[in-house]
Amino acid sequence: MNQIDLNSDMGESFGRYKLGNDELIMKYISSANIACGFHAGDPHVLKYTIQMAKEAGTSVGAHPGLPDLMGFGRRTMDVSPDELYDFCVYQIGAVRAFCRALDVPLQHVKCHGILETMTTRRPELAEAVADAVKDVDANLVYMTIAGTRLYQTCKAAGLRVAGEVYGDRAYNDDGTLVSRKLPGSLITDADSVVERINRFLDTGSMPTYEGGTVQVDAQSICMHGDTPGAAEMIRALRENIDKKGVRVVPVGTLV
Amino acid sequence: MNQIDLNSDMGESFGRYKLGNDELIMKYISSANIACGFHAGDPHVLKYTIQMAKEAGTSVGAHPGLPDLMGFGRRTMDVSPDELYDFCVYQIGAVRAFCRALDVPLQHVKCHGILETMTTRRPELAEAVADAVKDVDANLVYMTIAGTRLYQTCKAAGLRVAGEVYGDRAYNDDGTLVSRKLPGSLITDADSVVERINRFLDTGSMPTYEGGTVQVDAQSICMHGDTPGAAEMIRALRENIDKKGVRVVPVGTLV
Amino acid sequence: MNQIDLNSDMGESFGRYKLGNDELIMKYISSANIACGFHAGDPHVLKYTIQMAKEAGTSVGAHPGLPDLMGFGRRTMDVSPDELYDFCVYQIGAVRAFCRALDVPLQHVKCHGILETMTTRRPELAEAVADAVKDVDANLVYMTIAGTRLYQTCKAAGLRVAGEVYGDRAYNDDGTLVSRKLPGSLITDADSVVERINRFLDTGSMPTYEGGTVQVDAQSICMHGDTPGAAEMIRALRENIDKKGVRVVPVGTLV
Amino acid sequence: MNQIDLNSDMGESFGRYKLGNDELIMKYISSANIACGFHAGDPHVLKYTIQMAKEAGTSVGAHPGLPDLMGFGRRTMDVSPDELYDFCVYQIGAVRAFCRALDVPLQHVKCHGILETMTTRRPELAEAVADAVKDVDANLVYMTIAGTRLYQTCKAAGLRVAGEVYGDRAYNDDGTLVSRKLPGSLITDADSVVERINRFLDTGSMPTYEGGTVQVDAQSICMHGDTPGAAEMIRALRENIDKKGVRVVPVGTLV
Repeated sequence: MNQIDLNSDMGESFGRYKLGNDELIMKYISSANIACGFHAGDPHVLKYTIQMAKEAGTSVGAHPGLPDLMGFGRRTMDVSPDELYDFCVYQIGAVRAFCRALDVPLQHVKCHGILETMTTRRPELAEAVADAVKDVDANLVYMTIAGTRLYQTCKAAGLRVAGEVYGDRAYNDDGTLVSRKLPGSLITDADSVVERINRFLDTGSMPTYEGGTVQVDAQSICMHGDTPGAAEMIRALRENIDKKGVRVVPVGTLV
Repeated sequence: MNQIDLNSDMGESFGRYKLGNDELIMKYISSANIACGFHAGDPHVLKYTIQMAKEAGTSVGAHPGLPDLMGFGRRTMDVSPDELYDFCVYQIGAVRAFCRALDVPLQHVKCHGILETMTTRRPELAEAVADAVKDVDANLVYMTIAGTRLYQTCKAAGLRVAGEVYGDRAYNDDGTLVSRKLPGSLITDADSVVERINRFLDTGSMPTYEGGTVQVDAQSICMHGDTPGAAEMIRALRENIDKKGVRVVPVGTLV
Repeated sequence: MNQIDLNSDMGESFGRYKLGNDELIMKYISSANIACGFHAGDPHVLKYTIQMAKEAGTSVGAHPGLPDLMGFGRRTMDVSPDELYDFCVYQIGAVRAFCRALDVPLQHVKCHGILETMTTRRPELAEAVADAVKDVDANLVYMTIAGTRLYQTCKAAGLRVAGEVYGDRAYNDDGTLVSRKLPGSLITDADSVVERINRFLDTGSMPTYEGGTVQVDAQSICMHGDTPGAAEMIRALRENIDKKGVRVVPVGTLV
Repeated sequence: MNQIDLNSDMGESFGRYKLGNDELIMKYISSANIACGFHAGDPHVLKYTIQMAKEAGTSVGAHPGLPDLMGFGRRTMDVSPDELYDFCVYQIGAVRAFCRALDVPLQHVKCHGILETMTTRRPELAEAVADAVKDVDANLVYMTIAGTRLYQTCKAAGLRVAGEVYGDRAYNDDGTLVSRKLPGSLITDADSVVERINRFLDTGSMPTYEGGTVQVDAQSICMHGDTPGAAEMIRALRENIDKKGVRVVPVGTLV
């Protein structure tokens, strides 16, 4: 592999409330998943974050979520496919308008985590997301873990899709992520993350929890920006990738 | 005058709460000002209302407001120009995305009443609105009463602008509307509204409160859809205009 | 039976949005379940509705729900017991303050429907509701269908509990309500409702869907106030109960 | 002066968003003004903060604000006296319920800053606040700067009132605070704050911007908890007051 994308969630502040380390991280990543004002973010944060991405040369994506700011959109809600479609169109549209206003393209969409989880149990929700993305802009890339229901549905809908690899999460032998409830599911040591991603860049596979390896179909590395030490870890990872001679490029150029 | 637009506020329902008579009125008007989810409306109502407009052949506009659902966006808020710009871009973007999804053009923008009022006292807010509209889509029409601060600012910004005439509001000699606090400021009788608009279509002027007449520069007639009897009044007005041989057409074709 | 309570959900309007027929129904019922501002209602509606109850001599209850106004609190949310406890304390406290300000007692609490449903699957949520009610005011009555998880939990917590009978819902032989998805589950004919409640008042039992009868342990009749014709049906029911010589009294005097 | 209260705003976090340094500051103050869920705070934060106050032996007050989380309640809104009354009753009621649940008394009410400002221009809003506090609990203390419209209105309404002195704000000769727009209006040096409060404790007066002194009628010192270094400054101030032999006690014991 000689090219890879590096993505992170951005723009999660709200009003006077600050979350994350966007100012530190933005320059190290190539794709920013920007909160749209439902689970996090607000119109001002949206504009400010896209402006920051533009200045850093980072590509912009919409990161739609559930309308539950108090719960940070993390509480499963029993929404209908129609409701989810409408939430996605609304939020992608808002981000897209700021992209136009700031004269940057909207590159991709990546749903907030709980939406991914909900689609695994309810295929009609995966259809709703895919339809919403396609209906707003058929050229958008949908980014998620390769092989998931949502990935397959978006691909079947004719959208460009990009797979993700998680540098800081342990993998099962079948390529799924190890439950956060298990010890060791989260890799918090920067050196380990760098080493794991190095292995992935060299071989296309990741070490597994059980001690084996698994092939991961990914064009983008996902890193969390809101954990303690995240900014430093992402900087270290980025410097390592650069040193290897692998180019970090926006995912839209890879799929 | 042989052509005129007829506009009304639409899409003001929210969740289980129903407001207005969109189903009855949509077919009589040629431009719908659709609430965007801040002062009224929600993603589902937005989609449903644009679908209804499409089926009726009515052109679609965004009707942005203040983020105060409890107050229906009618309480002046001390927002900064930056905040208002961001609110407008966000809301216009949301409507625009549903227009794309439903394959209808977004024709115009018309701000919720209180925003108009706020711009008369704070010119920098008029600039913010004009900039937001222009930055999202420079081809949009901005619709408001001709001669107002906002009208002039949008015109100066290079936007297409459309003036409005109010069939159900009394006029002062200087072309401003009579304060709602004065008796007789609101015309509630359908025959009077029809007669006044007839006079306007024939002469380009409206009778005034003081007994004179005033020229009104308008390409669109604004009718309120949420007052009792509104649907019936709009139907009567539309039939009268048709009978006169004046064509009712979307404002985007007139400016 | 010579005394019974009659309850209905009230205060579900929000800002400019009007829902229900509180003005018509309030005088026919003896206990009002008042929305608290999460799934419906707002501070002004709360005060106005309690004032109305006071004038009608109707007793006041809090009707807490999920924080999802757009979904009218009807979408299951994956809340924790702690979160539900906090939501209930907050909402009951808000209603209780208006009761103090208007010098009327707060009589009871009845959760919004979806919360009842959620407690049947997650007993820890029933505990959370019971704890919240008890912690705010141990003298409050908790009202729900007798025999449910929530009923039993509140009883075990030492709260006064009141059972409900539904005049407009069909019953299974085991005393549960027939699913709304089945035809005939909802009784929409006023005469049938009156006849069924007559039977209940005479015998303590209700006819079942399967053709039998089932004993119902109830001190209160629940009637929906937001269906078409609801006001008229409640008036007819109340007049019939009065004619039978059964006294309609607030549930707090019965348990 | 041998006794004084020390108050600070607490409980301003929301959902996943953390604001302030409550954990550090709570033990140094004697009265906590707790956000109620409108401009800041949520039901969970409310409970957690009151629990923290209870453990620290700090008295609890309600800190009601405008329903504008995105603007942190700082944007003036054109609310009616009725609306403000309703907002205050609702919010004070919510805090009061958590106080009951946690078995601590509710001691006082102090409005969010913008409400204070709004009442100086609209006396009917001061009446609304005073009525709301009195109607929920006539024994509550209302805390604000002595001599303001709101102070006088609450006093005239028969409420116990407490005056405040600001350790970190410059004073005009007439006892009002120097506008934040002027250089030097905010005292950011801990030593200066300590010295100014020392002078107040010794003489009952504060130095003024113009070089004179002004008598300040205060039973409570207000310190901001959300500025950088606030926790350290409050600790230093508290230690100094203790060292002087002045007892720091809840304001409810002083008025």
